[in-house]
Amino acid sequence: MGVIIEFEPVGLRVEAETGQTVMQAARAMFTPESGGISAPCGGKGLCGRCRVRLVEGEFSPPNEVEVRLLGKKGLEEGYRLACQAVIIGPAKVEIPPEALTGRQKLQLDGTDAAVVPEPTIKRYNIPLKTTSVDYPYSTWQQVEVFLAQNYGLSGLRIDSGLIGRVEALAGDDPITVSIRGREITNAFLTGGMRKPVGLAVDLGSTKIAGFLVDLETGATLAAEGILNPQIAYGEDVISRLAYALEKEEQYSLITRVLREGLDRLLHTLCNAAGVVPEDVEEAVIVGNTAMHHLFLKLPVSQLARSPYVPAVTLPVEIKARDLGLGMAFGAVAYLVPAVAGFVGGDHVAMILSSRIHEARGVTLGLDIGTNTEIVLARDGEMISCSCASGPAFEGAHIQQGMRAIDGAISRVEVAEGGLKLHYETIGGSPPVGICGSGILDAVAGLYRAGVINYNGRLDANHPRVRFNGERKVAEYVLVPSEESGVDRDIVITQKDISEIQLAKAAIAAGTKVLLEKAGLKEEDIERVIVAGAFGTHLRLESAVAIGMLPDLPLERIQQVGNAAGAGARMILLSETERRRAEEIARNIKYVELAAMPEFGDNFLDQVRFPG
Amino acid sequence: MGVIIEFEPVGLRVEAETGQTVMQAARAMFTPESGGISAPCGGKGLCGRCRVRLVEGEFSPPNEVEVRLLGKKGLEEGYRLACQAVIIGPAKVEIPPEALTGRQKLQLDGTDAAVVPEPTIKRYNIPLKTTSVDYPYSTWQQVEVFLAQNYGLSGLRIDSGLIGRVEALAGDDPITVSIRGREITNAFLTGGMRKPVGLAVDLGSTKIAGFLVDLETGATLAAEGILNPQIAYGEDVISRLAYALEKEEQYSLITRVLREGLDRLLHTLCNAAGVVPEDVEEAVIVGNTAMHHLFLKLPVSQLARSPYVPAVTLPVEIKARDLGLGMAFGAVAYLVPAVAGFVGGDHVAMILSSRIHEARGVTLGLDIGTNTEIVLARDGEMISCSCASGPAFEGAHIQQGMRAIDGAISRVEVAEGGLKLHYETIGGSPPVGICGSGILDAVAGLYRAGVINYNGRLDANHPRVRFNGERKVAEYVLVPSEESGVDRDIVITQKDISEIQLAKAAIAAGTKVLLEKAGLKEEDIERVIVAGAFGTHLRLESAVAIGMLPDLPLERIQQVGNAAGAGARMILLSETERRRAEEIARNIKYVELAAMPEFGDNFLDQVRFPG
Repeated sequence: MGVIIEFEPVGLRVEAETGQTVMQAARAMFTPESGGISAPCGGKGLCGRCRVRLVEGEFSPPNEVEVRLLGKKGLEEGYRLACQAVIIGPAKVEIPPEALTGRQKLQLDGTDAAVVPEPTIKRYNIPLKTTSVDYPYSTWQQVEVFLAQNYGLSGLRIDSGLIGRVEALAGDDPITVSIRGREITNAFLTGGMRKPVGLAVDLGSTKIAGFLVDLETGATLAAEGILNPQIAYGEDVISRLAYALEKEEQYSLITRVLREGLDRLLHTLCNAAGVVPEDVEEAVIVGNTAMHHLFLKLPVSQLARSPYVPAVTLPVEIKARDLGLGMAFGAVAYLVPAVAGFVGGDHVAMILSSRIHEARGVTLGLDIGTNTEIVLARDGEMISCSCASGPAFEGAHIQQGMRAIDGAISRVEVAEGGLKLHYETIGGSPPVGICGSGILDAVAGLYRAGVINYNGRLDANHPRVRFNGERKVAEYVLVPSEESGVDRDIVITQKDISEIQLAKAAIAAGTKVLLEKAGLKEEDIERVIVAGAFGTHLRLESAVAIGMLPDLPLERIQQVGNAAGAGARMILLSETERRRAEEIARNIKYVELAAMPEFGDNFLDQVRFPG
Repeated sequence: MGVIIEFEPVGLRVEAETGQTVMQAARAMFTPESGGISAPCGGKGLCGRCRVRLVEGEFSPPNEVEVRLLGKKGLEEGYRLACQAVIIGPAKVEIPPEALTGRQKLQLDGTDAAVVPEPTIKRYNIPLKTTSVDYPYSTWQQVEVFLAQNYGLSGLRIDSGLIGRVEALAGDDPITVSIRGREITNAFLTGGMRKPVGLAVDLGSTKIAGFLVDLETGATLAAEGILNPQIAYGEDVISRLAYALEKEEQYSLITRVLREGLDRLLHTLCNAAGVVPEDVEEAVIVGNTAMHHLFLKLPVSQLARSPYVPAVTLPVEIKARDLGLGMAFGAVAYLVPAVAGFVGGDHVAMILSSRIHEARGVTLGLDIGTNTEIVLARDGEMISCSCASGPAFEGAHIQQGMRAIDGAISRVEVAEGGLKLHYETIGGSPPVGICGSGILDAVAGLYRAGVINYNGRLDANHPRVRFNGERKVAEYVLVPSEESGVDRDIVITQKDISEIQLAKAAIAAGTKVLLEKAGLKEEDIERVIVAGAFGTHLRLESAVAIGMLPDLPLERIQQVGNAAGAGARMILLSETERRRAEEIARNIKYVELAAMPEFGDNFLDQVRFPG
């Protein structure tokens, strides 16, 4: 009997047969290029490398092989061997990073920040003289005197934990110290050439993007994305908040996995850039309000229910070591302030890096995701809202949707009235599913070709449209199984189309409400900024065609990539930009859509496709 | 057979007989007024209240009563019942605070600081409106907006642990927040009238003086002294450093007992002043360099050996909660910087409060203790040194010496050529021993009366001088046993006189070296400041007579009490004074006596009494 097995963090849902092993179910969906579950022994139960964690549902009871290779503790924590565990019903499985093979890179691009480096951290090399009876000064005493005499620095403080991390008695070798504001936060023997580095982080619900930045030149030394490890505890922020609120230990757990994930990302970035973590002198973290709160373990009950207010919108500075981040000893993590419950520091960073706050005229900025934040700016005055656009563009709630990773159909061209279809996949591998930009293209193309009408209904008489009796839903065949990288057709269903309609309606309605608030009309918008990974990869024609973006000449619309990440890097690099970000956060007027009847009306209007 | 039992924290040495219980040995020395070991059941082994801790030496094995009343854990920690444990040899016993009866107040007086309050902490009352859909702002959001709009405060930070300590959703009741620099450090419902309070501490090797200060008016609300609980692990700082260096766990232990002692003192002060500890918004701590390092658990090996350098002389700011101090949640402890290995922040505070740094002309300042710190200032230029004057003035190393507590002879008048003696005791109770000021008076009086010659030798033919055959030393009988509060004569021995000679020689030699360094003569000194508890209670005539203080007209000499404690209060109360203290610490030129042959020569000269 067919049951659904959901694989995290890939976000892929597989129809498997009971009696199959988890490995067999996974193999049916992964391609050699897109990767899968690691199985060095070929699935013979010898190596124990295909360790996966059962998050929901049940498998067959653990067998002897599993008891031996996983131990009592492993089994208690929910671990199973994919080659041994037998499917007996629907389940959700987490593939830990070490068992996940293949390329998992996430899109990270974004315009590089063009700021003059002016970091909060400065380093000084201090020559030392050996402490002796004739020169009775310890290392720190010599540092203090040198900084005062050569740089006029006085009124300094020191992280008291740092004092014991250098030899109290000075030798002949010079020492380098880092100063943040008035505080000495790091120290090491000068030795070879080392450069101060910073970490910029965009803490997303789905993925975490990290950037290692040279604080002196401003160059990005490494960029890397990982899936947010909290995904295993809830796809969207609301379910994670609910999980955290259920039990104190659960809150501790998801805070810990997030912090550990970020620490792993930090180390990965350091390896890639050939930098030691002790040189990472500061972290700047942006994220939506829920991620911000869950990361700091702040009170969240008020975020999970109306009127959805953040506990705090002040900037938070906290020692990175108190967050479990293995950076420079006294390094500080600076968390960019949020604006409101659903408008976080990532929105602030997006505005900062796209310069929306200082643009003349009328600019619309959108960061499209599970929640889409929208800002409407007019000569520096900004109003923002957030609308629940849902995870459809992340591939979730779509029959054969998946995240934008290898094997995903990312571009679709509908030709000959929907009889023919051209498509591209990420990585060029045979298609295994479809990601946000692909779905958007498909829906727009099918609508233009008349296979979908303005209400979103599939034309039941079209040759590529069929009725799926088992699921009781009409579907359009995008790729027949013989062309696909998996053993089934890749389809787009009537339900998928509805999901896209709801998502785009939310975004369009949010835009309308902001325009009404500002007394403006769509055609007044001089510039549209579309940010975010999906926003960067979507085809603008398609987004305008289905009415997700305003019907404006395409040259007014600009796709800027991970603008939140770019903003985080700017805030990391420059104290001026940091002050600007705080000012933006304070100045944005927040519009709570849930409290506005206009939103509901607009939403219903926008479910249809443009006439 | 007679053996010596030493009682801490009282500092009294008792000659006991083997076979006696600890309680019996203690009773022989304590008076009803001076207190002793608590024994509600009369020493019958019923109540378990006479719990003492064996620090050194051995007692009889624990008996059944002790096993029952102390438990396995208590015995493992070294606890015994004073009424059951039998003396079998010399031992050192710590009487815990709960088992110590009688008055234990320490002298604390000192000129009150005359500064305009200008504290680092400011409080603001914030009116709140209930969070609702129509007013969707959390408590902290309302605080932020109110402070910006009404006080122009922006760029604020918040202690992230504080965020969850108020309800995220605002009610109608106003909230009060405390801000230190740019950081919000405390918050509570405004409720009744409460005032912001600060803690000033003089962390001495022997005693800890604490002051609770109203940060708005500058008034001292409570003052209290306790014995430093580290005394049980070493009388002087050198033995404590050695103890700490022996084993990591020992270092942790003596840091912990010190922090716990200070926390208890904090709570005692709060009780006395009717203040809640949550209102204590900042602590300022001064102390000698060793106490500073031991309190912060900094590296100390370089403090224990030549050239005796402090690990750090920068000011340290650290969250009070990280030191185990139960103050306001985000309160900071500010540790006044040290100058050198044996010149600490207490010396800086003494200079600040006696205004030596800004005095015209030539001023000599002395803070007399186990180590005596001396500063010689001339129109703002300061040189300082520290000399090992030893613990004789604290009553240690003196046959019948004791600390300046109830029952101690504190004043002596030698009359009729040493045949008669008038004396006073602290608290007016029958004498049980003699404290520093009493010894000083006695030695000076006997010298003037000719009972002691200029070399310090007792006149063996004087009627009150006798030879103690058992101890093989000449002694002068101060108080015969029938007059004393204990069952023996109170005497002053030849060895005691030598101790005083060594102590006063160290101080006088230190003064000489500083004068030589500055190219000045004794008569150039226009003002002498004598600080510290002993310095305040000594009789100036006596100190000049034996040559401890320069031979100057007495009106040039001023006794200022606990000037270090007064300085700590000033630094707590005023940011201007705090900057001044840091400047003083940077500007003092330190003279290391150990490195100077002049000191040794001067020292030998000064052992004799003035001709």
